[in-house]
Amino acid sequence: PPADSSRPTKVQELRVYEINERDRGSPAFLKLSQKQVNSLGDLVPFSNKVYSGDLEKRLGITTGLCVLIKHVPEKKGDRYEAIYSFYFGDYGHISVQGPYLTYQDTYLAVTGGSGIFQGVYGQVKLQQLIFPFKLFYTFYLKGIPDLPKELLGKHVDPSPDIEPSPAAKAKESDAVIPNFTD
Amino acid sequence: PPADSSRPTKVQELRVYEINERDRGSPAFLKLSQKQVNSLGDLVPFSNKVYSGDLEKRLGITTGLCVLIKHVPEKKGDRYEAIYSFYFGDYGHISVQGPYLTYQDTYLAVTGGSGIFQGVYGQVKLQQLIFPFKLFYTFYLKGIPDLPKELLGKHVDPSPDIEPSPAAKAKESDAVIPNFTD
Amino acid sequence: PPADSSRPTKVQELRVYEINERDRGSPAFLKLSQKQVNSLGDLVPFSNKVYSGDLEKRLGITTGLCVLIKHVPEKKGDRYEAIYSFYFGDYGHISVQGPYLTYQDTYLAVTGGSGIFQGVYGQVKLQQLIFPFKLFYTFYLKGIPDLPKELLGKHVDPSPDIEPSPAAKAKESDAVIPNFTD
Repeated sequence: PPADSSRPTKVQELRVYEINERDRGSPAFLKLSQKQVNSLGDLVPFSNKVYSGDLEKRLGITTGLCVLIKHVPEKKGDRYEAIYSFYFGDYGHISVQGPYLTYQDTYLAVTGGSGIFQGVYGQVKLQQLIFPFKLFYTFYLKGIPDLPKELLGKHVDPSPDIEPSPAAKAKESDAVIPNFTD
Repeated sequence: PPADSSRPTKVQELRVYEINERDRGSPAFLKLSQKQVNSLGDLVPFSNKVYSGDLEKRLGITTGLCVLIKHVPEKKGDRYEAIYSFYFGDYGHISVQGPYLTYQDTYLAVTGGSGIFQGVYGQVKLQQLIFPFKLFYTFYLKGIPDLPKELLGKHVDPSPDIEPSPAAKAKESDAVIPNFTD
Repeated sequence: PPADSSRPTKVQELRVYEINERDRGSPAFLKLSQKQVNSLGDLVPFSNKVYSGDLEKRLGITTGLCVLIKHVPEKKGDRYEAIYSFYFGDYGHISVQGPYLTYQDTYLAVTGGSGIFQGVYGQVKLQQLIFPFKLFYTFYLKGIPDLPKELLGKHVDPSPDIEPSPAAKAKESDAVIPNFTD
């Protein structure tokens, strides 16, 4: 086949942490339903920080919108439709869409990307560690060249106690990726 | 080619009904434009029920957001940009984006999916039967393995009179898919 | 391979202009953050006109939503998450998602499409010419058949001074594509 016809279909796993360090004014909970309990009509724009799975590097941010679908009283939680992106500095971004349940792990669709992620497809597992401040994601990515090694360090097992390395948290030059998104 | 390199490109058609049974508090019409006529600025989060094309099984729900783009007086209707997902219980979900016109059939993009729909691409035809309560969709899906038979029953021809089977409406155990989304 | 297994992977470049002629009531800047400075919580539904890269044809419109993520004082601008579609009349549409920075060019993901764009993937470069009224886009599209010639005219180099041809602006019959979106 001609050189341009190759589109890798092997699965590459990419793990990242999303952490809300309460310094970005996020989330913005817009109570547009005007109901006391969380309800359809409420909208929640948000932006958190993204760290590598080994917690040694600050990668970037998430940015997007959660649409509150319904309160689930028996789970003491909520169902959202989530539409957002993960930013990885000069490497580009990944866009995702799917269910965010505050009480349960879910899988979202990978809908596309830019930079090294252009043409990406697949899905991502969302694991909530501390609602809504710490989440762990495992991306199952296809359609892209081999990912750079600095994104693929051995991940720290997800738990509520995880913390980014002090250097990553301080955005020290050797603990960030090129032009990390902020 | 190696086993992991296969990505089916044949088209699989999947038909479902989306029905608003007026028991989900949906849609939430947010009149943020503050104009009397429907206008850019209005937002419409929504969530409806999804039934199989043969109307024998409750599959799940839709969840998402319609962005009002403009009122179209000569059609006595509105143009929306629609961003939403279809949930199919344990089978996973399909995300879509595109035009929703209250007065005309449209095609939306399939942007991705999870579970048995991971890596899906293609488009979906939206046919409105009774605005905004009954809609019929024909998905043209590529990139995924053969769909399970229980999603592929012979569809009932779309008309304003269609109703889910009483068993499906009552969510009886033999008239729902595994862990149907609610 | 069987006929249905072909999915073109060559890159096709498609260039279009997006122009706000201030006649669509767009954007609708929803100051839901209730803060003086642009902030997370503000939402910006929008719809602008789309012209061919040679500025000789009116193609359609953009429609979608920008989610304000943060104000960037050192750039005197803002970061948005943008979720929208480009409409091309009878040809169909392309959906995109990614970063919109008011002070810098960006790349967004192509997440899918309909019509001649069904199954499309890739990315698109966004260049701002006059904020927020004139933008130039270069799509890098894969997964679709050869684009029609009328979309591929030699593009006018992007500059703040570009204007659509008077015929395209007037939507004359030989300066629009079939059933251009309005």
